[in-house]
Amino acid sequence: MPSTPSPSALPAPLVDLMAALGQLPGIGPRSAERLALHIVLTAPAEVRQLATALIHARERVGNCACCGALTESQPCAICADARRDPTQVCVVEQAVEVLLIERTGAFRGRFHVLGGKLSPLNGVGPEDLRIAALEERCQHEPIREVILALPTDMEGDTTCAYLADRFTPLGVTVSRLAHGLPAGGGLEFADDLTLRRALEGRRPIH
Amino acid sequence: MPSTPSPSALPAPLVDLMAALGQLPGIGPRSAERLALHIVLTAPAEVRQLATALIHARERVGNCACCGALTESQPCAICADARRDPTQVCVVEQAVEVLLIERTGAFRGRFHVLGGKLSPLNGVGPEDLRIAALEERCQHEPIREVILALPTDMEGDTTCAYLADRFTPLGVTVSRLAHGLPAGGGLEFADDLTLRRALEGRRPIH
Repeated sequence: MPSTPSPSALPAPLVDLMAALGQLPGIGPRSAERLALHIVLTAPAEVRQLATALIHARERVGNCACCGALTESQPCAICADARRDPTQVCVVEQAVEVLLIERTGAFRGRFHVLGGKLSPLNGVGPEDLRIAALEERCQHEPIREVILALPTDMEGDTTCAYLADRFTPLGVTVSRLAHGLPAGGGLEFADDLTLRRALEGRRPIH
Repeated sequence: MPSTPSPSALPAPLVDLMAALGQLPGIGPRSAERLALHIVLTAPAEVRQLATALIHARERVGNCACCGALTESQPCAICADARRDPTQVCVVEQAVEVLLIERTGAFRGRFHVLGGKLSPLNGVGPEDLRIAALEERCQHEPIREVILALPTDMEGDTTCAYLADRFTPLGVTVSRLAHGLPAGGGLEFADDLTLRRALEGRRPIH
């Protein structure tokens, strides 16, 4: 292995740090080495700050008991914000996806994290997701529209169909994010399924 | 700033962690966010392990009192290794560069870290570098060759010329790493200076 320094040249704490950094997503062996060597040259106070930030992020951030989003307080800032539209709930699969929707600035309602998708093959049924909790919210909150922001794969489609069947009878509108061409891309970059859905979802310009 | 989630959506410990991660080299805002969200979903024990590895790497790794390389013990494993050739010393600018040379497996001597380059414009003189320590080593160790593995910029060239002038009279051979074409690259990838030095340094094949 010509790319590994001889063990004698690398102090053990550096080897340990490289191994720990290499576990992170998107950090390969070279990046782990570069980061570890940077840490050795960084001010100790700064390194302790990073270590503390890691532990705090893990220990102090949990899921909102109401919507399931990441939060430090109960309920989360979005659920607690009276200026948010209480009639719209955006349903996402994972808690981190709340941040993606928030970043657009295009949604002013509230959220509900399902925690997964229906997947009969993997034994994930409705009772494994936070669907009953959403039902309860529909009964106690003035929710009029449930907006499904779920993936466009087969399990996402199955989950959307199931939720539409289950929630429409409760008197709420169930909608789904539009499918179509991504912004900034030409037709040549769209796969067949995206193009087909863009055609099916075409809208009159006036 | 459309790429920043609204502050209310992001728990403070996550914001802090993103800021701390964003200080690391090669970690942009998007990577910092992806890593921070990964940390929230990682097992607490694993996060603590990473935090501890960071602190240990910073607090337990220092510089060898003899050669200046990164080490946990005094002297470092290379200085303490009796199988290393004591007649050759490879001079590098920074401690991390020892690892780069070690990785080649092509050098079996010892090292000496200068800690910088001569730079009159920035007020870095010979007394600011570990040159006197190298002189002392030349007097007490059976060193016959000082191999300069310094950068090929102007300050590196200046430092090499100075060290050659100062150490040749002590009876040691002062050499410098070869300049030339990088391995695996065609002429079209070499800049003018590299090509000129490759020409000047040409060697007969037989």
